[in-house]
Amino acid sequence: MTRGGLVGVSGYAGMELARLLSRHPSIKLTKAYSRVEAGKTLGDLYPFLRNLPGSETKISLFDAKECARDCDLIFLAVPAGEARKMVPELLAENLQVIDFSADYRLRDPGIYRQWYKLPCENDNALRDAVYGLPELYAAKIAKARLVANPGCYPTASILGARAALKNGIIDTDSIVIDAKSGASGAGRKPSLETLFCEVSANFRPYGVPGHRHTPEIEQEFSLIAGKEIRLSFVPHLVPMKRGILCSIYAPLTHPYTIEDIYEKFVETWKYYPWIRIKRPGELPDTANTRGSMYCDIGFAIDDRTNRLIIFSAIDNLCRGAAGQALACANLMRGLPVETGMVDLCPMP
Amino acid sequence: MTRGGLVGVSGYAGMELARLLSRHPSIKLTKAYSRVEAGKTLGDLYPFLRNLPGSETKISLFDAKECARDCDLIFLAVPAGEARKMVPELLAENLQVIDFSADYRLRDPGIYRQWYKLPCENDNALRDAVYGLPELYAAKIAKARLVANPGCYPTASILGARAALKNGIIDTDSIVIDAKSGASGAGRKPSLETLFCEVSANFRPYGVPGHRHTPEIEQEFSLIAGKEIRLSFVPHLVPMKRGILCSIYAPLTHPYTIEDIYEKFVETWKYYPWIRIKRPGELPDTANTRGSMYCDIGFAIDDRTNRLIIFSAIDNLCRGAAGQALACANLMRGLPVETGMVDLCPMP
Amino acid sequence: MTRGGLVGVSGYAGMELARLLSRHPSIKLTKAYSRVEAGKTLGDLYPFLRNLPGSETKISLFDAKECARDCDLIFLAVPAGEARKMVPELLAENLQVIDFSADYRLRDPGIYRQWYKLPCENDNALRDAVYGLPELYAAKIAKARLVANPGCYPTASILGARAALKNGIIDTDSIVIDAKSGASGAGRKPSLETLFCEVSANFRPYGVPGHRHTPEIEQEFSLIAGKEIRLSFVPHLVPMKRGILCSIYAPLTHPYTIEDIYEKFVETWKYYPWIRIKRPGELPDTANTRGSMYCDIGFAIDDRTNRLIIFSAIDNLCRGAAGQALACANLMRGLPVETGMVDLCPMP
Amino acid sequence: MTRGGLVGVSGYAGMELARLLSRHPSIKLTKAYSRVEAGKTLGDLYPFLRNLPGSETKISLFDAKECARDCDLIFLAVPAGEARKMVPELLAENLQVIDFSADYRLRDPGIYRQWYKLPCENDNALRDAVYGLPELYAAKIAKARLVANPGCYPTASILGARAALKNGIIDTDSIVIDAKSGASGAGRKPSLETLFCEVSANFRPYGVPGHRHTPEIEQEFSLIAGKEIRLSFVPHLVPMKRGILCSIYAPLTHPYTIEDIYEKFVETWKYYPWIRIKRPGELPDTANTRGSMYCDIGFAIDDRTNRLIIFSAIDNLCRGAAGQALACANLMRGLPVETGMVDLCPMP
Repeated sequence: MTRGGLVGVSGYAGMELARLLSRHPSIKLTKAYSRVEAGKTLGDLYPFLRNLPGSETKISLFDAKECARDCDLIFLAVPAGEARKMVPELLAENLQVIDFSADYRLRDPGIYRQWYKLPCENDNALRDAVYGLPELYAAKIAKARLVANPGCYPTASILGARAALKNGIIDTDSIVIDAKSGASGAGRKPSLETLFCEVSANFRPYGVPGHRHTPEIEQEFSLIAGKEIRLSFVPHLVPMKRGILCSIYAPLTHPYTIEDIYEKFVETWKYYPWIRIKRPGELPDTANTRGSMYCDIGFAIDDRTNRLIIFSAIDNLCRGAAGQALACANLMRGLPVETGMVDLCPMP
Repeated sequence: MTRGGLVGVSGYAGMELARLLSRHPSIKLTKAYSRVEAGKTLGDLYPFLRNLPGSETKISLFDAKECARDCDLIFLAVPAGEARKMVPELLAENLQVIDFSADYRLRDPGIYRQWYKLPCENDNALRDAVYGLPELYAAKIAKARLVANPGCYPTASILGARAALKNGIIDTDSIVIDAKSGASGAGRKPSLETLFCEVSANFRPYGVPGHRHTPEIEQEFSLIAGKEIRLSFVPHLVPMKRGILCSIYAPLTHPYTIEDIYEKFVETWKYYPWIRIKRPGELPDTANTRGSMYCDIGFAIDDRTNRLIIFSAIDNLCRGAAGQALACANLMRGLPVETGMVDLCPMP
Repeated sequence: MTRGGLVGVSGYAGMELARLLSRHPSIKLTKAYSRVEAGKTLGDLYPFLRNLPGSETKISLFDAKECARDCDLIFLAVPAGEARKMVPELLAENLQVIDFSADYRLRDPGIYRQWYKLPCENDNALRDAVYGLPELYAAKIAKARLVANPGCYPTASILGARAALKNGIIDTDSIVIDAKSGASGAGRKPSLETLFCEVSANFRPYGVPGHRHTPEIEQEFSLIAGKEIRLSFVPHLVPMKRGILCSIYAPLTHPYTIEDIYEKFVETWKYYPWIRIKRPGELPDTANTRGSMYCDIGFAIDDRTNRLIIFSAIDNLCRGAAGQALACANLMRGLPVETGMVDLCPMP
Repeated sequence: MTRGGLVGVSGYAGMELARLLSRHPSIKLTKAYSRVEAGKTLGDLYPFLRNLPGSETKISLFDAKECARDCDLIFLAVPAGEARKMVPELLAENLQVIDFSADYRLRDPGIYRQWYKLPCENDNALRDAVYGLPELYAAKIAKARLVANPGCYPTASILGARAALKNGIIDTDSIVIDAKSGASGAGRKPSLETLFCEVSANFRPYGVPGHRHTPEIEQEFSLIAGKEIRLSFVPHLVPMKRGILCSIYAPLTHPYTIEDIYEKFVETWKYYPWIRIKRPGELPDTANTRGSMYCDIGFAIDDRTNRLIIFSAIDNLCRGAAGQALACANLMRGLPVETGMVDLCPMP
């Protein structure tokens, strides 16, 4: 039985991780940390958890030494910049670490500094950090001591585009990602912008230009395609709680048929049960992935403009955050990647 | 392994049952029937199911003989009136039957005729039917060949009021149940009233006076209290998909304190893990029960009017329909009631 | 042309007043005050206002002297307790005042102290304050210097119940008001409870027992019925922005028919175009009143329990706050009560 | 006073037109036609209209002769293909006609046939039809006997892109329009896809590739740019009732600064009060245009990819359908274009 700790239990990613761990057979949440919620139990904070395993866990103030004694692996759900301050000590304490923030996702410290406007001490941790997308890096994750859990938009974008990038199907010079997310992506901290009355019955873009997930997407796209890629990434806020759908536009390199594309997508993902390729004519939506690890991918060819349009849908809290972290945790603990999530059926 | 059949897979209760059975260890959905969707697979109809057990099950036209050959137990998710036509033959074929409709819920055929305006042949089935509320009738359900799965509003009302009725806490002459439900309770059949544009950003009462769940609630309330009860039941439509919250008003028989009430509620339900009693000062909501079997019950005393107000919240599709049916199926098959649902964590 | 001022422009009631005044022919918003938003224009704060009258109005810090110089009438959209501190000076400056808070609604200072836990200096203002429900107090409002704008729940409750109370149709000893409101009633100040992710797809009671609108409802009910009334009032939060629906339960004093009731309701309200009585068999909803001054009232008789159930629906921001205040302002300025709102069509 | 008729009152565009005409000073809805709703009054069909002008109008079966006698101008809210059958007779009866369908929007009958798979009799009406976008064609509309009311997506797209197209700011070879609409765009006819339970808490693309608004957008883009334009247009469904937001992507022709662009947008639209250009750094949303004629336009430069991203937001029912038709009607009747809508404040 793995003893897991969670720093930052009061956010939605923390909430989702508590949900997933309540049903995990071999990783338990033994410690949950939060400055604001210390003193409560997990069940006090999240009434949905009551009567379920983990509900009685006391939330406490973080203490690295104590954490090292009581945990084997620690999930960090803290803001960018905070993780960098905590990780070296946690690694020194021999904890395995999964960081939800962006602090260790970007291989190039200069790009991190440029986009996050934060110092980026040249620590050794970055060198060893593994980008925690299990479909791409399972072997490395299994050996990692520090995993940088991918961002929600990058997860949907990378899984959506990978088959096209890898197979040279699209012209990588002119990629546009028009992304849409539910409001839980904005966090559980009260703000005017995320009030019910501001989000409901409304639709709007935000964070343009220059959303911080851009360089993360570009990094992984470039690695898959084997060349430097620059693209436009534009997020929008949808009046729903969970879910991301990315619409990815790119010119085709050849006049492929829809069947050609379908075949290549299916072939690329055939060993990955969490990736579901929609048949030609079908399109994904977010509801059919809700609460699960699935990434549903559909596409269409606009033959009048010779453009491929890929749609990829995920649950931003599960696949795009806590579930993905748990998949990484499984690998790091020598468990099958899908442990505790094999029967995680979406709830539309 | 129990082979389960489902007639009426195209409604939301059918959808929910398919979701729950995709993760059940010992009951499988071997046959799914639907007039409109015949020919598709379950995964075609419900894309969220793809890659999960049951997804490949072909939907076909119902045939009682074939059903009897391929199934041990059959779930009927058909309209009131239809079940009565089908049940005798299914029982004759030695199938165990769980009926989602109201056809076998009311013990008194006269009351059924009066409220449902349907013929009520004096068949033997009614005599043997058991009301499928596991907390109240587990032993009988375990031996039943025909279970009448409770209505969604009655489930929330009966579980909510039981501790008060049983302990003589409330005056049973003046009970008001103001109930609120998400739109899935209205079914998956297209209608103007349930269009997104008619339901969203709107709130309204419906079906007053005389909603058909009234006699069902009165029957069970009367049985618990040991005397005839008449009450007012008024449902409302909430702009959300899943969830029911019932607000139950009744005068207190004595000047109880809030602690008295809490103690009696806890005592009444102490062996039932799906019933969660909120502590004094806490109130339930629907989101914390979503997708689960939990019934969350809170209450307050309005001491200025000496009235007890009970709030009970459930997921109308899971606890109020498919999940409850599955709990009954577990019992009928000799399994622990919570089989396949012990780790069904709500997803807020 | 009347020069109007508004203290507390940054809340939803302030927003709604700015919307309504943008189209008013003879009252203009010349001053808008807010601590947090000072320096912006109204159009900066509320982009929907841009290009409309009032959009260029600069938001500034409140100053009573300056306000007295630049305004004829002032709307106070400040928290309970704050208004009491400001009103005496404003009246001394010869301003007409409409207070959105509860500070001057309750005739009995002891009840105010008991429910609001605030000091209630024995100022003269209370003696002169008029409860600003135009259908009931138009003549007094027209002469008032201080109007206490009714609460949103009391508005819906009083208008809904008045015909029944006035005509002795219901037993006043056993009234239950089960009320439901959209989230804008909770204000525009960021809080966890009003985040989109906490409110959407959820339904819950709150503030029970003892919501502060209770004594206000009881006061006006008692005045209409001519006797002391105590009742149970329970509010719930609906996942929508605007709208209140109150379900009012009370025993009938006689076995009235539905036509009797309809006739009395129509008769009571025949000179009041903002009150729309639903025909027997019809029920109101919130969407059909959205953004307007209408109060839609429907009812049903539960003859099995001899209970009358009244449903009244309003827009909480317009009829329940800013629109009602504007109707009072019209009267105070010698204008027809409906000035600027005669063509205010609901937008479902 | 102009006597207006409306064929197809039972759809959402018809509903919105009834709302707008209830407050119009010089066009009245004298006749409303609907096959399904004949016999009811407008107030029966749309309770929000009760007590307002037009509420008592009887809905009847359409009859061209009678219509010609009782109306000066007729609004056709009927499906594509139906209008073509009706228009010649209506014109022959000397009625002015505003057609909400696509039947007369496309100048080239071949393109109409190709996209709509409908016959396109070579009637003279098409030659005389004017595309009813008042900002572009006011003079022609004023003289037209037949106006083709623009589609909702084309309205948002054309208004959004016009300043960029007209000023040669963008490369017209590589335009992508990623569009998002509320559910009212799908109509008021019951269907599974538009049920509350299917749309709420969900986001999905639809109608790709080849949504029928594509050629309409291309036609007007080409006319503005003075050259043939082909583009990708992809619509998505947002869980809200009203509103469209289009995100338009195109490469810049030169390294413009954000201030350059802002200046050109402001200059282009300076005489058009319904077009509101967001300042650099501000972005539009749909809520701030709700229920109004405003088109809010914002933009950003992605200088890493040298791409301009334009966001344009409208209310699909008002600006995208009924309000725009009414603006055309105003022009056709010799009234100022904004008659009856000058004080139409958005309601967020």
